[in-house]
Amino acid sequence: MKHDSFAIGIDIGGTNTVFGLVNKHGDIMARGHVPTLGFNTPHEFLQAISQNIQTKLSNYPEAVIQGIGVGAPNGNFYTGEILNAANLPWKGVIPLATVLNDMLGMKVRVTNDANAAALGEMIYGIAKGMKDFIMVTLGTGVGSGFVSNGQLIYGHDGFAGELGHVIAVRGGRDCGCGRKGCLETYASATGIVRTAKEKLERYPKGSSSLQLYNKLTAESIFQAAEQGDKLAQDLFEFTGKILGQTLADVVAITSPEAIIFFGGLAHAGKWILHPTQQYMEVNLLSIYKNKVKLLPSALPDADVAILGASALVWQTNNH
Amino acid sequence: MKHDSFAIGIDIGGTNTVFGLVNKHGDIMARGHVPTLGFNTPHEFLQAISQNIQTKLSNYPEAVIQGIGVGAPNGNFYTGEILNAANLPWKGVIPLATVLNDMLGMKVRVTNDANAAALGEMIYGIAKGMKDFIMVTLGTGVGSGFVSNGQLIYGHDGFAGELGHVIAVRGGRDCGCGRKGCLETYASATGIVRTAKEKLERYPKGSSSLQLYNKLTAESIFQAAEQGDKLAQDLFEFTGKILGQTLADVVAITSPEAIIFFGGLAHAGKWILHPTQQYMEVNLLSIYKNKVKLLPSALPDADVAILGASALVWQTNNH
Repeated sequence: MKHDSFAIGIDIGGTNTVFGLVNKHGDIMARGHVPTLGFNTPHEFLQAISQNIQTKLSNYPEAVIQGIGVGAPNGNFYTGEILNAANLPWKGVIPLATVLNDMLGMKVRVTNDANAAALGEMIYGIAKGMKDFIMVTLGTGVGSGFVSNGQLIYGHDGFAGELGHVIAVRGGRDCGCGRKGCLETYASATGIVRTAKEKLERYPKGSSSLQLYNKLTAESIFQAAEQGDKLAQDLFEFTGKILGQTLADVVAITSPEAIIFFGGLAHAGKWILHPTQQYMEVNLLSIYKNKVKLLPSALPDADVAILGASALVWQTNNH
Repeated sequence: MKHDSFAIGIDIGGTNTVFGLVNKHGDIMARGHVPTLGFNTPHEFLQAISQNIQTKLSNYPEAVIQGIGVGAPNGNFYTGEILNAANLPWKGVIPLATVLNDMLGMKVRVTNDANAAALGEMIYGIAKGMKDFIMVTLGTGVGSGFVSNGQLIYGHDGFAGELGHVIAVRGGRDCGCGRKGCLETYASATGIVRTAKEKLERYPKGSSSLQLYNKLTAESIFQAAEQGDKLAQDLFEFTGKILGQTLADVVAITSPEAIIFFGGLAHAGKWILHPTQQYMEVNLLSIYKNKVKLLPSALPDADVAILGASALVWQTNNH
């Protein structure tokens, strides 16, 4: 790897932070991690990351590092800050880019996790060569990154792409954001469990294997669907209906070539993709019908966060 | 105007087609028009336009023409064609850019009317300097042009930006597109008249001045609202509610600096803007609150179509 160009990708998660040294092909040459919890201040936490990175880099003295990309909850591309992230132990504003730049002397780019995932797919993954697509992460919540004209849509303030908070059902379920009916209260790993609990209340005892679980998860609902449980299959049908209807509206805004899914609920494969596709098509304006591909992410699960963050270094907007 | 640079802007409408010779500041130096109806084939129609343009240009022998921009219903930026426009006398595909280029020997760019209007605002109007905004035309239908990162979002196929066909009310009013509840069935000049007719059926006789009209229009509802008619004011309140709710969802996608309104219903000024702003704010995710400006277009009505089309010449995407 003599004199080769590398990017450092850092993914800050609620419990763990991982980083990697990534080449232009998306190969992760070295990795490291630091627990996100267990530091009193963000400064101590960033110091620990920086030391860890420097230790790793000392093994590659001739590598040329082009910069650092960070994916973080509520990470803002324009300001390089994290702003009031609900899932991190520190509140308020964290001036991530400035501090890391001071500590490591490298250019630092920041964005949120879903935007980073979209860049990862565009630079290394299934969206390579696409100029217009949407990345949707179906995890605890629903995140999204919109790419148009080959660029991420950050919006004027860096906060664009909150598909999870588009209202899917007006006056619907309470959302953590304080409003009602947001897409993520239905079409996330948490959302499908809420649906399951609602439906189980009205189901006769002994009619679904899901009634045997003490703690339902999206994974257990997937397993039950695989084994032929009708209720579990209906839960995916319902979830795909809400997701597909909402995607049909979003297609009318950006007319993407593809919508790419990532995250826990996306692992349910056909159980979630088939009904989503079906209800999206039924609800699409005719000019968009049979044009939009729904695809699962092609990047390895454990790597997508690091790859996405590193992609920020190779691909930055004109701003 | 010796040796100055000009763009030709052509706006093809359902009954009339207008064109103008426009400089970089948005001054229209010469104008012309051709009736859209009254030609047997699109070829004859385009021939008439070309001859008209050539006649005008002969008065400005030293003008340097940079190209031609055309705004047309269902005009596609990528293909330069018009595809099955419901409001034009010719069906199927019209290879507009190719034919005009053959006839006039100039580079021709095509897009739909709402996208052209967005470019017009960005190059000459109130969106000058903005990189992220949405143009919304509230006319017979609802059209839109989305600008992100300083570029129009055309989508992978050139058909992005159909805000009028986002579902505002699931299972709501029948739309000309064959689906139900599209925004334009509520928040257009036609939509507010539908609302009026629905409400008037349930109103006691003699309680609104709107009951005196034989043929209601958005203009007459506006006049009645101005004169204190409570029903007319309620109609704008209801229309603004539907529009504001839907815009709140769209803001979560592209996070624009401003939403700019143009077209018949936008002339109702505060009657439509105030409730729209109010209901948008109530429905916005907190990070977007009090950030998005709602603005009326600043371009003169009679000129916006020509200016928008001509702006295509100065601003073309990277594609």
